[in-house]
Amino acid sequence: MIYFDNSATTSMAPEAMKTYTDVATKIMGNPSSLHQLGTVATRLLDASRRQISELLGVQPHEIYFTSGGTEGDNWVLKGVAFEKKPFGNHIIVSSVEHPAIKNAAEWLRTQGFDVDYAPVDAKGFVKVKELKALVRDETILVSCMAVNNEVGAIQPLKEIADFLEDKPTISFHVDAVQGLGKIAVEDFMLPRVDFVTLSAHKFHGPRGVGILVIKAGKRLTPLLHGGGQENNKRSTTENLPAIAATAKAMRLTLTDDSLKRKKVGKMKAVIYNALKAYDKVILFSEMEHFAPNILTFGIRGVRGEVVVHGFENHEIYISTTSACSSKKNATAGTLVAMNVPNKYATSAVRISLDHTNNMSEVEQFLTVFKILYSEFDKIAR
Amino acid sequence: MIYFDNSATTSMAPEAMKTYTDVATKIMGNPSSLHQLGTVATRLLDASRRQISELLGVQPHEIYFTSGGTEGDNWVLKGVAFEKKPFGNHIIVSSVEHPAIKNAAEWLRTQGFDVDYAPVDAKGFVKVKELKALVRDETILVSCMAVNNEVGAIQPLKEIADFLEDKPTISFHVDAVQGLGKIAVEDFMLPRVDFVTLSAHKFHGPRGVGILVIKAGKRLTPLLHGGGQENNKRSTTENLPAIAATAKAMRLTLTDDSLKRKKVGKMKAVIYNALKAYDKVILFSEMEHFAPNILTFGIRGVRGEVVVHGFENHEIYISTTSACSSKKNATAGTLVAMNVPNKYATSAVRISLDHTNNMSEVEQFLTVFKILYSEFDKIAR
Ligand SMILES: Cc1ncc(COP(=O)(O)O)c(C=O)c1O
Ligand SMILES: Cc1ncc(COP(=O)(O)O)c(C=O)c1O
Repeated sequence: MIYFDNSATTSMAPEAMKTYTDVATKIMGNPSSLHQLGTVATRLLDASRRQISELLGVQPHEIYFTSGGTEGDNWVLKGVAFEKKPFGNHIIVSSVEHPAIKNAAEWLRTQGFDVDYAPVDAKGFVKVKELKALVRDETILVSCMAVNNEVGAIQPLKEIADFLEDKPTISFHVDAVQGLGKIAVEDFMLPRVDFVTLSAHKFHGPRGVGILVIKAGKRLTPLLHGGGQENNKRSTTENLPAIAATAKAMRLTLTDDSLKRKKVGKMKAVIYNALKAYDKVILFSEMEHFAPNILTFGIRGVRGEVVVHGFENHEIYISTTSACSSKKNATAGTLVAMNVPNKYATSAVRISLDHTNNMSEVEQFLTVFKILYSEFDKIAR
Repeated sequence: MIYFDNSATTSMAPEAMKTYTDVATKIMGNPSSLHQLGTVATRLLDASRRQISELLGVQPHEIYFTSGGTEGDNWVLKGVAFEKKPFGNHIIVSSVEHPAIKNAAEWLRTQGFDVDYAPVDAKGFVKVKELKALVRDETILVSCMAVNNEVGAIQPLKEIADFLEDKPTISFHVDAVQGLGKIAVEDFMLPRVDFVTLSAHKFHGPRGVGILVIKAGKRLTPLLHGGGQENNKRSTTENLPAIAATAKAMRLTLTDDSLKRKKVGKMKAVIYNALKAYDKVILFSEMEHFAPNILTFGIRGVRGEVVVHGFENHEIYISTTSACSSKKNATAGTLVAMNVPNKYATSAVRISLDHTNNMSEVEQFLTVFKILYSEFDKIAR
């Protein structure tokens, strides 16, 4: 089996799994409990938070644990909206955001907020000039992802940050769910960024855990009110085993991360160069300014699902452009925003690599590709 | 070590732990993925949902997975509020609800909703007559817990359900987080109940998973918008290992549950009868109409924290009345609602038993109690 669908979810690292079971079996206290078992739990929670904060270059009290990327995204959009309602009702998100952002924004529209989508160019990069033009007095939030999940475009966060430098009343959120490990931490954890969303299952951590970085002093109406955990900002009994496992997975992921990116980038380059030689292949991802792990392409005239199933028959797992939209047969949001004609967009499939993949898998992939291509060639003509 | 703090959190059952690790290591697909690995994941997700639905006596499509009790409670309160805003803005919750309910309700107040708290009697039971009197044309939701987490009072859900029978426009929510396994499933899963909140870590399942039962046809604005998981009602990549482990833990918990209740009730009775003999002991829980596992009491003149720490020195873990309020030194909400004078309320501690406890632990507890009592007796005078 060859797993090239790492942007959908990654396998849990064995070390993270071990941390999970160790904590779940040995540390039974609830961090909120007054007694010794609670203290032990609290200490481990604090240690996990500290470790993550160091890896991200922020302060421990700027780390908040959530249930995943979707909660982090919803929390920021709704939390900023409700918090800043007295000051303005206008939100700008890029047109290639994940549905967790777009659908939260669309809901806010039903609650009296005004939402603008910043357009992207033909390659999927946010047009910063047009984003700037959308800003007005009522703008309270700009949300832009670090790495696009469908084509891998690395968004111009630095430019947006520079533009927002002298606009302190506008919150700046970055969904870095596909960014951690794929670009340098400093490249999304910019000083001007107020909120950053991460999700553990995308970097070999457990599912059901996310991190929201809330920079000191930045306010957010809670999404989960209750017992007062997470500094009274996000209540619920802390998922300690999974949080400790997340810290472990993040440390592993960010150890030699630039070497891993090089390794992954080389694999992508081999596939990229090989696919370019095929007549009917359309490449939606490029090498430069794109994440080293994501390569999205299509075979003209062949629907993405057909390609996915073709590879599946050879036990190679790839994806249509995003896991969540795939089953709904919806045209991929990012490609539409890139103005890709529908007939090409529906052909798109995504390969998402990982440092746990290797060059021999790449070669097998290309061998199978060749076989499938000639089969499709007959059908598609 | 004797763990009598099972209402704060329970240990994860070894079988549930095994399910977690099996699924996390063997099933790596994202249920939303189109390929075979996604199909395998989806099948397991469906099987877990079906198993849970059968255990709860509802339909599979009425089961929604969340991140815990707090999310379930917040989702219902905010989800009903936003959904029914055009029809009314009045919400009734009991005055002894968990902070997940009360604080969500208080936030809704800041958003233009009107909240009334139904009072309880001196024992902690909701006064149904007074609750009835609070209902008015604008009432959209009544929320009442099954078992109170601080004293164990089993709330008169049936009476409330009967009253609401001919008021179909009012949603009825039951927080059964402390109820599962402690009372019969039928006693909170009443036909008239529209929404039921559960939390896995309270019944030997993993932390970070909850269940919200949403009866067929009952609408709820999502709290987590996004990729469309959970029938487009609760988005995020499904936490499959933990969900499968939850199904396992629930099955174990509900196997011979009435026998387990009897066993636990006997242990409680022994402690109850022993403590009654002490002059300065105030009992806040009783045997009848109270959960078999919870016994809350105080030693007059001795603060709850002091008692908790006294037991801790003997490696016996009990709690002030609720884990989440304990650290904030806040007076317990339920006892205040019961009109317990502050000087007594601050003395309260909670023992919460489990079928994994045994009579020898009960005896050890009582031996230590005797020692501590005579020590406290000297201090307190
Ligand atoms: C860019 C982006 N944001 C958010 C999410 C949602 O993350 P989660 O599945 O942890 O809720 C994803 C995952 O697919 C993603 O790719
Ligand atoms: C009655 C009740 N409701 C809700 C909750 C919150 O559950 P969780 O910790 O899973 O968010 C608790 C847990 O303490 C509880 O006792």
